[in-house]
Amino acid sequence: LSLSEFDIIGKYFNQPGLIPEPGNTTIPLAIGDDCALLDIPAGKQLAVSMDTLLADLHFFSNDDPALIAQRALAVNLSDLAAMGAVPLAFTLGLSLPRAEDSWLKGFSEGLRHAVSRYQCPLIGGDITRGNLAITIQVHGLVDRGAAIRRSQARVGDTVYVSGELGAAGLAVGLLRNGMSLNKPDRHELHQAYYDPQPQLELGRICVGKVSAAIDISDGLLADAGHIARQSGVGMELEARAIPVAKAVKRFLGGLGDNSGGVKHALSAGDDYQLLLTVKSEQEVQLQKEAEASKIKLTRIGKVIKGSRVRCLDTAGEEIVLMRAGFQHFS
Amino acid sequence: LSLSEFDIIGKYFNQPGLIPEPGNTTIPLAIGDDCALLDIPAGKQLAVSMDTLLADLHFFSNDDPALIAQRALAVNLSDLAAMGAVPLAFTLGLSLPRAEDSWLKGFSEGLRHAVSRYQCPLIGGDITRGNLAITIQVHGLVDRGAAIRRSQARVGDTVYVSGELGAAGLAVGLLRNGMSLNKPDRHELHQAYYDPQPQLELGRICVGKVSAAIDISDGLLADAGHIARQSGVGMELEARAIPVAKAVKRFLGGLGDNSGGVKHALSAGDDYQLLLTVKSEQEVQLQKEAEASKIKLTRIGKVIKGSRVRCLDTAGEEIVLMRAGFQHFS
Repeated sequence: LSLSEFDIIGKYFNQPGLIPEPGNTTIPLAIGDDCALLDIPAGKQLAVSMDTLLADLHFFSNDDPALIAQRALAVNLSDLAAMGAVPLAFTLGLSLPRAEDSWLKGFSEGLRHAVSRYQCPLIGGDITRGNLAITIQVHGLVDRGAAIRRSQARVGDTVYVSGELGAAGLAVGLLRNGMSLNKPDRHELHQAYYDPQPQLELGRICVGKVSAAIDISDGLLADAGHIARQSGVGMELEARAIPVAKAVKRFLGGLGDNSGGVKHALSAGDDYQLLLTVKSEQEVQLQKEAEASKIKLTRIGKVIKGSRVRCLDTAGEEIVLMRAGFQHFS
Repeated sequence: LSLSEFDIIGKYFNQPGLIPEPGNTTIPLAIGDDCALLDIPAGKQLAVSMDTLLADLHFFSNDDPALIAQRALAVNLSDLAAMGAVPLAFTLGLSLPRAEDSWLKGFSEGLRHAVSRYQCPLIGGDITRGNLAITIQVHGLVDRGAAIRRSQARVGDTVYVSGELGAAGLAVGLLRNGMSLNKPDRHELHQAYYDPQPQLELGRICVGKVSAAIDISDGLLADAGHIARQSGVGMELEARAIPVAKAVKRFLGGLGDNSGGVKHALSAGDDYQLLLTVKSEQEVQLQKEAEASKIKLTRIGKVIKGSRVRCLDTAGEEIVLMRAGFQHFS
């Protein structure tokens, strides 16, 4: 098989369903020129975020390429969700060891599925021959001045988390140990890891209602630490309130509030739920709108003075983790 | 040495001289949150372009890291130049095999130099542990509807190229064969390869004056082919008019119009000069403004009917290359 970069782009990527629909006035030019063009509507700001996923570090190289593609876009969109931004478009830097038709077909199909689901077309990028690696930059729109930042949490705010935690991280652990997720009792884990749900709808609901937000990619405690540091506050979380995923409870057992399951949920990344700090006068409205959208929100603690994030069990003892979250180069 | 991703970002990248200056209203938020924010001025569109540079494919891994950084940003900015866009900001996806202080210091110094020179600060990105690879997305501003595209060349337009061609490609050839560029007679080659000059000023001059433009990264004939295909036209170039770099003439000798030097200049990429098609009524004004800015522009041919790009020698014979330009996966 001997395809040039241009052949690959034309055959697998510059295709209906992946690129913007004709007449999209916000994206007057996409793939095929020196640059793509974006025409940002008046009153909006553009939010951008870039993430690199490397084979066998951030995903498994022998994974179904459609699932690799879907997950790669989803985890990037999670950063838009955390700012309250609406997806607009993405660029893709793809390094591939070889131009293999079945892999490229699967990858572009998975991407097409995600593009349709999140209404976020492909507008450009680069394809190179190298170790399998995916760099995606997502671009989203948010009302001017309305983006949710990490730095605005205030003492007295309440801390919430969306969804349930730990399933994706458990899936990664099992996969790393060569175990399969294709057994019936592991469906929830398979879904959690391969089909993470960027909390875009929740992000939109949060605009104007939360003081700070972050998506949980490094682990709940580690990401809470980012908000704390950037806002100049501390946090106190209640272990018994942490919403641990059912599969984590089932697999890790021991459901006391200082159990392995809770510790796992505090340190596992990859769930891409949102961690929020909310002013007390906004809590009722936020809960109401989340409920109307069938989004689970759990109150897990409060913002306090100081600079540390602590999670306490019912006896008031701090739960100490061996490892606070995922960090490269550590 | 054990630095986390956050340590590396803080120590080498989230630093004055690299990030936007405080009070930059077009970039209200840069490194440190889930996304960066851009506030595009009224009447402007955003031009974006992403390129990946892999060690030992697009650059040499043992190169001076400051030169790697400078070149990586410059070649990306060349895509903005080709659209007539003004640099605004860039994002960086950096994969590194290890967190080595001297390399990171050199790389960030080179980047700082380029940021200052091109007025294009760093607003975000991602650092991962893997084989050395650099993905950069550049963002630029252009007046709404004024971006120069590849698709608008028309029969009768004149073809121009900026600068001189072939020096950077010759440098790559010498380096690949283990030869040094640090000898006195190779200074021009060293500069051409390690310090390519994105033609940003020329790009701005071209807005409203040229019908199509592309930066020459794949090679003159290959890139002319992109304009021809996307505009639905052909081109006829004159071999004797091609501005061959002095160093190429010196090293490759034989300066007839069907010589190795001309063939090299037709196929070499990496110079990042601009190839332009110009309506005849705009030629005088374009030449005048280019001259005022001390930019060399050479008339090398014309846009004709058809779909092929041909370069003819003085006898009217087509010059045939073995290899039309740089293509991955071919």
